Amino acid sequence: MEGVDHLAPERNKAQFDVDEMKIVWAGSRDVFEVSDRMARLVASDPAFRKDNRTMLGRKELFKNTLRKATYAWKRIIELRLNEQEAKQLRSYVDEPAFTDLHWGMFVPAIQGQGTDEQQQKWLPLAHKMQIIGCYAQTELGHGSNVQGLETTATFDPKTDEFVIHSPTLTSSKWWPGGLGKMSTHAVVYARLITNGQDHGVHGFIVQLRSLDDHLPLPGITVGDIGMKFGNGAYNTMDNGVLRFDHVRIPRNQMLMRSVLLLYLFLTPLLVSQVTREGKYVQSNVPRQLVYGTMVYVRQTIVADASTALSRAVCIATRYSAVRRQFGSHNGSPETQVIDYKTQQARLFPLLASAYAFRFVGEWLKWLYTDVTRRLQANDFSTLPEAHACTAGLKSLTTSATADGIEECRKLCGGHGYLCSSGLPELFAVYVPACTYEGDNIVLLLQVARHLMKTVSQLGSGKKPVGTTAYMGRVEHLMQCCCDVQKAEDWLRPNVVLEAFEARAARMSVACAKNLSQFTNQEQGFQELAADLVEAAVAHCQLIVVSKFLEKLQQDIPGKGVKQQLEVLCGVYSLFLLHKYQGDFLSTGCITPTQASLANEQLRSLYSQVRPNAIALVDAFNYTDHYLGSVLGRYDGNVYPNLYEEAWKDPLNDSVVPDGYHEYVRPMLKQQLRNARL
Amino acid sequence: MEGVDHLAPERNKAQFDVDEMKIVWAGSRDVFEVSDRMARLVASDPAFRKDNRTMLGRKELFKNTLRKATYAWKRIIELRLNEQEAKQLRSYVDEPAFTDLHWGMFVPAIQGQGTDEQQQKWLPLAHKMQIIGCYAQTELGHGSNVQGLETTATFDPKTDEFVIHSPTLTSSKWWPGGLGKMSTHAVVYARLITNGQDHGVHGFIVQLRSLDDHLPLPGITVGDIGMKFGNGAYNTMDNGVLRFDHVRIPRNQMLMRSVLLLYLFLTPLLVSQVTREGKYVQSNVPRQLVYGTMVYVRQTIVADASTALSRAVCIATRYSAVRRQFGSHNGSPETQVIDYKTQQARLFPLLASAYAFRFVGEWLKWLYTDVTRRLQANDFSTLPEAHACTAGLKSLTTSATADGIEECRKLCGGHGYLCSSGLPELFAVYVPACTYEGDNIVLLLQVARHLMKTVSQLGSGKKPVGTTAYMGRVEHLMQCCCDVQKAEDWLRPNVVLEAFEARAARMSVACAKNLSQFTNQEQGFQELAADLVEAAVAHCQLIVVSKFLEKLQQDIPGKGVKQQLEVLCGVYSLFLLHKYQGDFLSTGCITPTQASLANEQLRSLYSQVRPNAIALVDAFNYTDHYLGSVLGRYDGNVYPNLYEEAWKDPLNDSVVPDGYHEYVRPMLKQQLRNARL
Ligand SMILES: Cc1cc2nc3c(=O)[nH]c(=O)nc-3n(C[C@H](O)[C@H](O)[C@H](O)COP(=O)(O)OP(=O)(O)OC[C@H]3O[C@@H](n4cnc5c(N)ncnc54)[C@H](O)[C@@H]3O)c2cc1C
Ligand SMILES: Cc1cc2nc3c(=O)[nH]c(=O)nc-3n(C[C@H](O)[C@H](O)[C@H](O)COP(=O)(O)OP(=O)(O)OC[C@H]3O[C@@H](n4cnc5c(N)ncnc54)[C@H](O)[C@@H]3O)c2cc1C
Repeated sequence: MEGVDHLAPERNKAQFDVDEMKIVWAGSRDVFEVSDRMARLVASDPAFRKDNRTMLGRKELFKNTLRKATYAWKRIIELRLNEQEAKQLRSYVDEPAFTDLHWGMFVPAIQGQGTDEQQQKWLPLAHKMQIIGCYAQTELGHGSNVQGLETTATFDPKTDEFVIHSPTLTSSKWWPGGLGKMSTHAVVYARLITNGQDHGVHGFIVQLRSLDDHLPLPGITVGDIGMKFGNGAYNTMDNGVLRFDHVRIPRNQMLMRSVLLLYLFLTPLLVSQVTREGKYVQSNVPRQLVYGTMVYVRQTIVADASTALSRAVCIATRYSAVRRQFGSHNGSPETQVIDYKTQQARLFPLLASAYAFRFVGEWLKWLYTDVTRRLQANDFSTLPEAHACTAGLKSLTTSATADGIEECRKLCGGHGYLCSSGLPELFAVYVPACTYEGDNIVLLLQVARHLMKTVSQLGSGKKPVGTTAYMGRVEHLMQCCCDVQKAEDWLRPNVVLEAFEARAARMSVACAKNLSQFTNQEQGFQELAADLVEAAVAHCQLIVVSKFLEKLQQDIPGKGVKQQLEVLCGVYSLFLLHKYQGDFLSTGCITPTQASLANEQLRSLYSQVRPNAIALVDAFNYTDHYLGSVLGRYDGNVYPNLYEEAWKDPLNDSVVPDGYHEYVRPMLKQQLRNARL
Repeated sequence: MEGVDHLAPERNKAQFDVDEMKIVWAGSRDVFEVSDRMARLVASDPAFRKDNRTMLGRKELFKNTLRKATYAWKRIIELRLNEQEAKQLRSYVDEPAFTDLHWGMFVPAIQGQGTDEQQQKWLPLAHKMQIIGCYAQTELGHGSNVQGLETTATFDPKTDEFVIHSPTLTSSKWWPGGLGKMSTHAVVYARLITNGQDHGVHGFIVQLRSLDDHLPLPGITVGDIGMKFGNGAYNTMDNGVLRFDHVRIPRNQMLMRSVLLLYLFLTPLLVSQVTREGKYVQSNVPRQLVYGTMVYVRQTIVADASTALSRAVCIATRYSAVRRQFGSHNGSPETQVIDYKTQQARLFPLLASAYAFRFVGEWLKWLYTDVTRRLQANDFSTLPEAHACTAGLKSLTTSATADGIEECRKLCGGHGYLCSSGLPELFAVYVPACTYEGDNIVLLLQVARHLMKTVSQLGSGKKPVGTTAYMGRVEHLMQCCCDVQKAEDWLRPNVVLEAFEARAARMSVACAKNLSQFTNQEQGFQELAADLVEAAVAHCQLIVVSKFLEKLQQDIPGKGVKQQLEVLCGVYSLFLLHKYQGDFLSTGCITPTQASLANEQLRSLYSQVRPNAIALVDAFNYTDHYLGSVLGRYDGNVYPNLYEEAWKDPLNDSVVPDGYHEYVRPMLKQQLRNARL
């Protein structure tokens, strides 16, 4: 059966031009072309094989990653790839490695917070990989609360040096990727102390290991923090622990300039100066500026969410078309499980979410350029809104993606539990996205704060901007009535949009009202936190829905492409409306009858997705290498390959397993006394 | 700090008698005593160490399990443990092993389906572990649809044998635990064929491996199906693949008697007879009888759900009391994260769910004896209801537990992602419970079928029984009005119960109404499947709530114990009411104002749980060994132990990691050409 496309009948059903959809998914023809080329490059090179990854012990796994990451770098140089290409190549290698943090956090931290001299000194070394850097912020005792970090950097005017020290066990750096075994340098965040005065948390460039023999420098204790969730997955990364015993660094290794701050930014870190005499000079950079880069980083996280979710959806969709169970009549083939309505009701909203997150991610790219442009013109007016919006979208999309991947795994029945399905590893490697770059609940609380502020300022004439602009129409939204009378009415974009706006506005206003009954606002906020989080979620869902609808306003070429996206947009919004109908009903935005009409319309949209489902996941353009899933194979030839894959397990190296003779045989022979237990 | 109880202040806050709660949790003083003794026995024996499990490669891991499982058996014999004790001991060893399927499926299958002679022949061998058995039903191509199995057992009257054969690739047995490497025998399910006629799926005892050298017998291909989700976790089990090439077994190895059927029970399998002449004789055992044991097996699954969930909750609760983040004023300690309302709103419903599942599991034990008693009296009237009820509860509790464990992991922030937190492995080993013993969605569809039947028979005078009895009051439930006027009204059991009954009844009736608009009922059922599943969930949640309320009708001794359980019952039901308020509102069971009063009451219940939270998880009586979590340590001494644990990772064996010299150093030295890539 080699070469047969078992999914060809499915592909023939598609009612749209898949190649054009690929361009829409990629964002542009150019991005598609690069991405496609890099994906094939990686897939065709046996050095990037990853199908054996989940069977390796930690050391072997890690060694393998060192080889791959270095080899990827070699290829990047040999092929003279540009930055965009290199990034794509690394992402298709699909294996967390120390280089991720080097390029993703260390280099940008220096670019953002280093002075010109600092950049001139460090960036060339980093760009050629003569040094390897990581980003050491989180400690054993503090992650979310960055201001609580305990590592100290005490200025010693006698030697013009900072003394970096870990005063407590909980001040040990803990989690930084690439730190455990590989980094030669780190950007370390520590409390700056001059003349006995604590100036809060600042960044410092610290060398950790010798460039000669890779041994930790004096005063430095460093190692790996141990196994993490899943086989393979994030265990290719050396997340590390680091302690300083009075380690001295020159004064010029404090990061002394900044408009940018890359990480965690729940509260902005400080970037200031210390003079030769030990005088602390507060930066005159407006505090808001540091939010700029958060917008950037979070935008990439949202894009990554759509990638991860689409991979899982691609696997589950293809397998659901291959898998048949029940429903055979008189010897006819059984029903493809994708034809069961319950399967559709679980799978298609995730398919729609993948597209929705893609488009909101695309919009965030625009938002970033807009924010940057405004900053350069000293216009800070949209920053708090942009900050809240990206915080919320990071939280919303990563939570939905983590849950969605696991749902895709369950959609594959028993076989989804095998590593060869690719789904367990996809889940395990993805879930920390809900925690890093800001814990998702902590982020939603920030969104809620912004919403409460927006509501409280409504009276004052301050016009809400950007994604909160709808709040400006609060009076209308508080009393408007949904006019849906038949199921198809739910296909009208304005009807959907207004329902989501009304729901979000009413939930925020209700929270604000409840808050106003507390004399102590902060105490009220703490007390009502769970409700506030729900209001924040409603607001964020509105953003995603509205950006999907906006996308559909654009000219989208290709036969049937726009129609498919309209169907998916309908699925996404009506699915949310159904899932959260409690919100819509309790705030009186819609009636129970309208809710049930929405559900009816949703069902009919599922039927419209059905014939296009395989083509809609083909449009992601993933290679079998990247998917890494026997269940998600492009050709649908699942069973022979599952069977073959099984035999590769190390347990199958021998017919009689290790341990049988020592332990089990004596038991079977009723001679347990002879067992070497 | 050795020996200090960091959680002592929390324990002092408790307002109830923890020791008495331990008895309630265990079910009885006797069960508590055995369970406590076995837990300590395992915990104190270094042979049962498991803290290094997640770091081992597959072979080492598996060998280790062979040792532990055999050693456990040795101890069981040495200590002359009775069945209950042995079961507890095995469960505290806390590592899936081939012995699970031997005792849990193979032995019961023979007990249930074997004739007296078969039992006399096989059970003594199995009981002494002179043979090792597994349960081989699922195939590569068929899991849920047992009737679609393809393996054949063709009777050859010439030799008085069955010929067991795998005619297709998809007929390969696939998944049975213990099959891959260990089992000497299996109960194999195959299509019985006599005289060219297919009589459907039946069970056969088949020897797989030689008892001399453990090699597979002629005609048998067998191996492990490869790595599964997670490190450690279920990879200690040799789930296997098995193919038959015309393997012959004597006629008397067909299982020829049955009132019991243990597994998968989506549709009952047949147990009949084949005579010497090859005549097929249908069993005269009433078909319903086979449901009896499903009730038994599923009851243990529900009990296991409460165990798994309570472990995760115990870890997350203790760590939430240890972890502090934000909120320090003038040097005061930061806020314990358990004091954040969002943390409470995520954690406490799971704590309440663990208790709720415990009690419903206990009730299922009663249901099983009740069903058995009735069967013996030829009363089949409650069987369909009992079957639907257990199917639904299996689905509800395993889904909630799988999601709950992952939520507990997220509640621990970054550190929850470390294997040393115990949570990743707990999740990975638990999730297949949503799939095996009946896919959770397929089960809910069965519940829905039963509900639709119940509704359709309401007019006919047939009185609904057991957990569907409330349907008998459907007229009242369709029009009753909730009379809650203030938050505290939601503490009245009858108010809560009626709201849940009305919701469930109205959702079922609405589905039935929609169904009636289809001319083809089956087509209607398929089309409305997603709504039907929601109605089934509503029904199952009602069962859990009502059994919790019934439990509170009992006399429960111990200072404050009953009060705590009342609070937890309130949390469980009002949390559901809030989460599913869309159901309650759309069916008009409650008003938006009442929904918001419920939410208010829920918040105040959280405050009541707070001081008792640690004591409520102490009541599970888990040893640190069993929890296997640094974050969940009884003494709360988290940080030094996390730190110590890290250094045990194999990557920390050497300062400079394997692979550095070959790959990374050449890169740093800009001599990539020298790298051995
Ligand atoms: C795979 C991975 C890679 C990482 N890589 C890096 C890296 O390269 N460099 C680096 O510096 N760090 C890194 N980190 C650390 C990461 O940034 C932190 O784990 C993250 O910020 C969460 O902080 P925490 O662990 O302190 O969570 P905690 O804040 O301790 O969260 C615990 C619980 O408390 C709750 N909570 C906390 N504060 C509040 C509040 N104010 N209100 C309500 N609830 C609250 C949270 O919601 C959560 O439920 C990494 C982590 C992981 C898992
Ligand atoms: C860890 C583990 C251990 C196991 N141990 C054993 C063992 O010891 N012995 C043994 O024999 N087997 C064992 N199994 C197999 C297990 O019983 C099956 O995997 C399980 O029954 C699910 O069947 P499936 O894999 O065919 O799922 P499928 O039925 O293929 O499910 C795929 C999807 O289709 C959907 N679906 C299927 N039918 C319908 C329908 N009619 N309507 C709507 N949706 C439908 C499901 O909801 C699911 O989303 C084990 C499995 C696992 C994961």
